[in-house]
Amino acid sequence: MPSVAEPAHLEVIALEGIPEIKPGDDLAEIVLDALRATPNALPARDDDVLVVTQKVVSKAEGAIADLTTVEPRPEAVAFAKRWDRDARQVELVLRHAKRVVRMDNGVVITETAHGFVCANGGIDASNVGPDSGSIVTLLPADPDASAARIRAVVREATGIDVPVIVSDSFGRPWRFGIVDVAIGVSGLVPLDDLRGTPDHDGRVMKSTVRAVADELASAAELTLGKHSARPVAVVRGAAFRRGEGSIKEVLMPASWDLFR
Amino acid sequence: MPSVAEPAHLEVIALEGIPEIKPGDDLAEIVLDALRATPNALPARDDDVLVVTQKVVSKAEGAIADLTTVEPRPEAVAFAKRWDRDARQVELVLRHAKRVVRMDNGVVITETAHGFVCANGGIDASNVGPDSGSIVTLLPADPDASAARIRAVVREATGIDVPVIVSDSFGRPWRFGIVDVAIGVSGLVPLDDLRGTPDHDGRVMKSTVRAVADELASAAELTLGKHSARPVAVVRGAAFRRGEGSIKEVLMPASWDLFR
Repeated sequence: MPSVAEPAHLEVIALEGIPEIKPGDDLAEIVLDALRATPNALPARDDDVLVVTQKVVSKAEGAIADLTTVEPRPEAVAFAKRWDRDARQVELVLRHAKRVVRMDNGVVITETAHGFVCANGGIDASNVGPDSGSIVTLLPADPDASAARIRAVVREATGIDVPVIVSDSFGRPWRFGIVDVAIGVSGLVPLDDLRGTPDHDGRVMKSTVRAVADELASAAELTLGKHSARPVAVVRGAAFRRGEGSIKEVLMPASWDLFR
Repeated sequence: MPSVAEPAHLEVIALEGIPEIKPGDDLAEIVLDALRATPNALPARDDDVLVVTQKVVSKAEGAIADLTTVEPRPEAVAFAKRWDRDARQVELVLRHAKRVVRMDNGVVITETAHGFVCANGGIDASNVGPDSGSIVTLLPADPDASAARIRAVVREATGIDVPVIVSDSFGRPWRFGIVDVAIGVSGLVPLDDLRGTPDHDGRVMKSTVRAVADELASAAELTLGKHSARPVAVVRGAAFRRGEGSIKEVLMPASWDLFR
C-alpha cells in the first residue's frame, strides 16, 4: 500500500482551553470540547492526527503515585545518595521495570512492562499540578488503548475518525536533550515502510522505514512546549498511513538490539 | 534567558522548484530562489527556521564517493558477505569512522569524525540522482559551516537572518525506524535548557532540556518525506531560542554516555 501522497504543507494546532486534569476526569470528552472550541482544530482531513501528551493521559487514568507512600529498597537509597536523586523515585522506577538496562551517572535506564527503554521508566515529577510536591506520574498501563479510547469518543460524537498518538519525552543515547516520541497509537501505522518502493530517482530504497509516529509527536511538542498548559495538538498535513497500528511495531525485539 | 514565548500554531512549508543538485552547484543561491518562488515561504518572523536535508548539502559540496573506486578491506568483505551488504560501502563507513561502536546484525554503527554516532556513518545511496548507481553521499565535512553559509547568503540577499538546520535521518537504539535529526545548525540554540525554570505549576524543572533542533528536523521531514524531490522546508512558529549555537552542544561526551 502506498503512503498518503506527500503534501507540501504541515500545520500543528495546539488545542485551547484544556483545564488541569485530575484523576477520574473524562479526558476524551475534555479533548472533544477543546477540539470544538479551538478555531480550525476539528479534524476534517484524512491527514489529521491528534497528539495527546502522556502527562494528562496518566493523570486522567490515575496512573500516578505519591512518593510519601514509597519505601525505597537499600539499592535505591544508595544510588540516590550517590547521585543526589530522590530514593523513592528510584524505587518506583525499579518497581515498574521489567529489566534495568543501565544504572550509572545518576541515570536509571529501564525497560518498562510495555517494552519501552527509557530513562527513569517514564516516571516524571514536573507539571503534575499545583500543590502536588510528592505526586509523580507513571506511564499509562496501555497507551495504545488510551489512544483508542480518545479516538472512539471523538468518532462517536462527531463521526470523524481521527488517528490518535499518546506522546512522551524520551532521552536518547549519544545526544543530549529529550524529544517527544509516540508511546501509544490508534488509527495510524507508526512505521512508514518504504523498503522496496522507488525513491524519486527510481532507485529502490533498501532501508528506509520512517518512524512517522515519533516525528508527529516531535512536531506537536514544538507547539506544546514544556512551560505551557497545552497538552494536546492536531497535526495536519503530514505524510503517514492510516491503519490499525500499534506502538508495539516500533519496539525492537532483543534479538535486533545491539545495545542490550 | 527565557525561551521564545511559545506560540500555539506551527507551520512547515516545503520549498518548491529545487532542481536535482549536482556537485559544485551553489546550493545557497538555489535555496534563496526557492524561498522567493514558494508562496509565503520567505522568512518574515523571528521564529522561522530553514531546514535543509543532508543529501543536497553533500551533493552540492561534492561530499560523495563512487563505490567503483573503493577497494574493500577483508573485514568489510567478510561482513558484507555474511549480511548481504555492499562491501565497498562497508569499507567507506569504516574509513570515515573515528570509532566502531557496534558491528553486528548487518548494521555498522560508528562514531564519525564529527562525533555523530549513527548507522553506516551517515553514508547513503538513495536519492543521489538518476544514473548514479554507484554514487553514495558522505556527510558534509562541517555541517555547522554548511548551515552558516546558507544563512549568510540568505541574509546578504534579503536582509533576513533566518536560522538554518542541516538535517539527516538517523536510526535509534531500541526503536525501529529513522527520524530526522539536526547534524548542523547556525543561528539557533539546538538545546532549549529549561532546567531551573518553573513549569506551569510553578515547580522548578530539574531535567528538561528540549532537543529542539532535532524536533525541528523531524517536523520538516513530515512534509519532505522520502519519495519527493523536496529537500528544504521552512518551519514557522516553533518554540526555540535564536543564538550562535553549534551541533557540538548536542553530542554527548564519552564520559556521559552509558552506551560506549
